Amino acid sequence: MTDVLVKDLYTKSRDFGEDAISVSGWIRTTRSSKKIAFIEVNDGSYIKNVQVIAKRDNLANFEEVIKLPISSTLKVTGKLVETPDAQQPFELHAEEINIEGASDPDYPLQKKAHSLEYLRTIAHLRPKTNTFYAVFKIRSLAAFAIHEYLQKDDFVYVNTPIITSSDTEGAGEMFRVTTLDDQDTPKDENGKNDYSKDFFGEETNLTVSGQLQVEPFALAFRNVYTFGPTFRAEDSHTKRHAAEFWMIEPEMAFAELPEVLDSSEGLLKYVVNYLLDHAAADLQFLNDNVDNNLLELLHKTVDEDFARITYTEAIDLLEKSDADFKFPVKWGIDLNSEHEQYLAEQVFKRPVFVTDYPRNIKAFYMRDNTDKKTVAAVDLLVPRIGELIGGSQREEREDVLQAKMDEFGLPQAEYDWYLDLRKYGATKHSGYGIGFERLLMYVTGMDNIRDVIPYPRIQGSINF
Amino acid sequence: MTDVLVKDLYTKSRDFGEDAISVSGWIRTTRSSKKIAFIEVNDGSYIKNVQVIAKRDNLANFEEVIKLPISSTLKVTGKLVETPDAQQPFELHAEEINIEGASDPDYPLQKKAHSLEYLRTIAHLRPKTNTFYAVFKIRSLAAFAIHEYLQKDDFVYVNTPIITSSDTEGAGEMFRVTTLDDQDTPKDENGKNDYSKDFFGEETNLTVSGQLQVEPFALAFRNVYTFGPTFRAEDSHTKRHAAEFWMIEPEMAFAELPEVLDSSEGLLKYVVNYLLDHAAADLQFLNDNVDNNLLELLHKTVDEDFARITYTEAIDLLEKSDADFKFPVKWGIDLNSEHEQYLAEQVFKRPVFVTDYPRNIKAFYMRDNTDKKTVAAVDLLVPRIGELIGGSQREEREDVLQAKMDEFGLPQAEYDWYLDLRKYGATKHSGYGIGFERLLMYVTGMDNIRDVIPYPRIQGSINF
Repeated sequence: MTDVLVKDLYTKSRDFGEDAISVSGWIRTTRSSKKIAFIEVNDGSYIKNVQVIAKRDNLANFEEVIKLPISSTLKVTGKLVETPDAQQPFELHAEEINIEGASDPDYPLQKKAHSLEYLRTIAHLRPKTNTFYAVFKIRSLAAFAIHEYLQKDDFVYVNTPIITSSDTEGAGEMFRVTTLDDQDTPKDENGKNDYSKDFFGEETNLTVSGQLQVEPFALAFRNVYTFGPTFRAEDSHTKRHAAEFWMIEPEMAFAELPEVLDSSEGLLKYVVNYLLDHAAADLQFLNDNVDNNLLELLHKTVDEDFARITYTEAIDLLEKSDADFKFPVKWGIDLNSEHEQYLAEQVFKRPVFVTDYPRNIKAFYMRDNTDKKTVAAVDLLVPRIGELIGGSQREEREDVLQAKMDEFGLPQAEYDWYLDLRKYGATKHSGYGIGFERLLMYVTGMDNIRDVIPYPRIQGSINF
Repeated sequence: MTDVLVKDLYTKSRDFGEDAISVSGWIRTTRSSKKIAFIEVNDGSYIKNVQVIAKRDNLANFEEVIKLPISSTLKVTGKLVETPDAQQPFELHAEEINIEGASDPDYPLQKKAHSLEYLRTIAHLRPKTNTFYAVFKIRSLAAFAIHEYLQKDDFVYVNTPIITSSDTEGAGEMFRVTTLDDQDTPKDENGKNDYSKDFFGEETNLTVSGQLQVEPFALAFRNVYTFGPTFRAEDSHTKRHAAEFWMIEPEMAFAELPEVLDSSEGLLKYVVNYLLDHAAADLQFLNDNVDNNLLELLHKTVDEDFARITYTEAIDLLEKSDADFKFPVKWGIDLNSEHEQYLAEQVFKRPVFVTDYPRNIKAFYMRDNTDKKTVAAVDLLVPRIGELIGGSQREEREDVLQAKMDEFGLPQAEYDWYLDLRKYGATKHSGYGIGFERLLMYVTGMDNIRDVIPYPRIQGSINF
C-alpha cells in the first residue's frame, strides 16, 4: 500500500498495477445514493480533486462517511481506476476509509459561491477554496522564480532592515516602532515621547524601502537584491494599497538605465514563463473563473518585446489622444493611473517602459540627465495594473547628489553613510523596485490587493 | 573588447585569444615602483581579486593611477596573461585604465586588519572586506538553498503578516506598532493609549513567529513554509540574540514528529551541500581566517546521520557526566546552553535531535504524548551554537487543545480562528522553526549574530 499525492496522479504515473494506494485529504463534496457515494477529496497537493467511489457493500462505515460534513479529514485506501470517458481521468475505488477528523456541520465554506469580501473575513479558511488555492500557490511559485532568476545571474540576496531610524525617500507615512510604556510614557521637554528612553535609544519606524540600505551591498557584490516586507501607514482605501506588502529591489553596480529595462523585462518574462510551466492548472482555473483574458495577457507578456518610450513621448501620445482624461495632461505632471492604463492598454496593448521623467516629480537619488530637466528614471506600465516597476540610475556624483539633497530638503546628517558611497569610489549604479503584490495581481487576474496577501493589513482592519 | 567578471576568470574560461578584455572594480591594494605597479582589483563577483599589471611605459595616467586611494573605482582594459608559477593563476596587463571614481584618502578600510566591533560601526562598508564578503555571500546562497529544497518538495511559501494583533505563543516581549500622535496621544479612561484610535483600530505588535498563521495554509496546501523577519524586544545582550532576525518555519499536514526530524535533517544537509558546491572559495577563506574547524564540521554535517535521543535520555547522559555544570541537571528542567553544547560537542560530536520534552516547559500547541508528562517536541542541538531548530507535532485534538489553553492561561477569544482548524476537520500536522542567523553562524564560523546580519538591530543601537 502506497501513500500517494493527488498532484502525482494528475502529472506523473498512475500505474500501480493491482496495488492499493491511499490518499489523505479533505472532503470537498459528497453525493450519495443508497448504495454508492461519490466523494471529492482534495489533498492540498493540487488544485484538482480525486473522486472517491464508496460503496455500502464493502465499507462498514459507509453510513457514517456519507454523513460527514464538508472539510472532514479522511484517509482513503483503495484501487485507482482509469476512467477515460468521464470528466475526471481516474477515480479511487475505496476499500477502506478512515475518518481522521470529522468537521462541524457549520463549516463556513459550503458548496455555494462566496463573495471575495466575505472570504476575507475567514482568511484562515479561504486557502481551501479553488480561487485562493490558485492565488497563493502562484504567490509561492512567483517568489521562487524571482529568486531563481536573480541567483542564476549571481545577484546576492540582502535582507535590509525592517526597523529603521531613517525615512528613506520620504516615500510615505511610516509606522512607529516602540516599547515605551503606553500608560506612563516618558516625555521630553516639548511634551513629545522621549525616544532616548525607547528600545533603540531613538525614534524608529518600519521601513518603506530597502533601496538605500542595499546600495552599499551593490558596491561590494556588484549585483544584489532585497525581497522583503515594506510598510506604508497611509489613509488609502484603494484596491491597490495595503499597509504591509512585499517588494523586490534589485541593484546593479556599473549599470546604467538601459540595463534596468533589460533586467526587469527579463525578470518579468522569467516569472511568467515559470508560472506557465509550473502552475498551468492554477492559471487555467483563474482564466476560467476570474479573468478570461489572463492567459492571453500572460502569453503576450512573454512573446512580445515590451515597448519603450520616453516620458516626453508619452505626454505627446496622451495629448494627441481622443480619450477623455479626468486629470489634464501637460509636460511636468506625474502620470495618473488613467494615463498609465491608457498607454499600456489602449496604445501599446502590452507592457511599456516610460523613461526620463521630469526631475521634480522623482526622488532625490535619481541621476540628473544632461538636459537638467529630466532624470534617468523608468516606470514599467502594464495593462490592468498601471505602474508595476519603478527604477532609475542613481546619482553617483557626490557634489550633484549633495546639491540635490539640499534642494529637496533632506537632512544630510542622516544620509552621511549614503554619501560615503560616493566619497569612497563613486560607481555608476542603477536599480529598480517591484511591488510583489502588484505583480501577483497581474499574473492571477485578481482585482484587489487584499486577495493576493495571506492576511492583508489595511487601515482599520487587522485580523489573525 | 569583452567585459568580463573576475568570477568567470577563476571558474570558467580564460581563453580570449589575442582579444583585450576589461574589468570594472575597486582597488584593494596598490604596490608600485618607478616603472610598474601591481594593483589588486576586486569586482564584486568573487571573493578573489584580479591582479592588474600597470606599466608607466604604456599608460598616460600611470602617475595618477598609482596615487589613487584604496576603494577607488577603475575600468581596466588589457590582455589576460596566464601565470602558472605565481600565486595568482593569471594577471591582467593593462593597456588602458579609466578612473571611474577616485576615493577620498580617508577611506576607513585601510590594509590593516580591523576588529569586528569596529567594522560593525561601518556596516555600509564592511561588505567590502573579505570576511563580510564571504559571510553575506553565504547568507544569500543559504537562503536560496532553503527555498530550493522546500520548493522541490512542493512546499508552498507563505508570507505570514509582520504586523499582528496577537502575541502567538507568548514567546517574548514585543514591539508595538503605532501611528498615534506622540505628543497629544489619545488616552482611554484608564490613562492608557487609546488604541481604538490607532491605525488598525486596536493595539498591534511586530510578529514573534509566523507559525500559528501558517498552520491554516498547511491544512490547505499540505506542505508550507514561512521565511521572513521576526522580532523580540528583549533586554538581552548575548552574542546570539538580535531584536530583528529571520526565521524559516515549515509546516506539514499529515505529518508526525519523526517527519520533522527527517525534513529538518534533510534541509540542513541540503543547505550545507549547496554551500560546499557554490561557496567553496568563501568557505575556504572563512576556514583559513575565522574558524579552522569550519570545513571539517560542515563535512561531518553532511556525511553523518544526526544523532536522535529523547529528553529523558539526554538528562541521563548529563547526570552521568563528569562535567561541571553551572546549572544543575534534573528531569524537568529546560536545557541550558551549557547542557546543549555538552551534548552536541562532547557526547555526540555532531548534530543531535532531542525529542519528547516535559510538557510544562514547552508551548501550549505541542501535542501531548500518551505519558501525559511529555510532548511530541524536538530541538536540534549542534556544536558551537546549541539549539538551531525547534519543532513539534501540533495538538490537533480540539478538546485537548482547549483544555491546555485554559491550563496555560491563553485567552480563547483571540485564538478562535486557531481552534477552527481543529473544528473543521482535525488533521495531524507538525512543523519546525529555524533561526536563520543561527544557521548562518553555524555555516560561517562567525561567533556573533551581529556579524551575520547586514544591519543588525540591537537594544540601544540602530544605525543606517
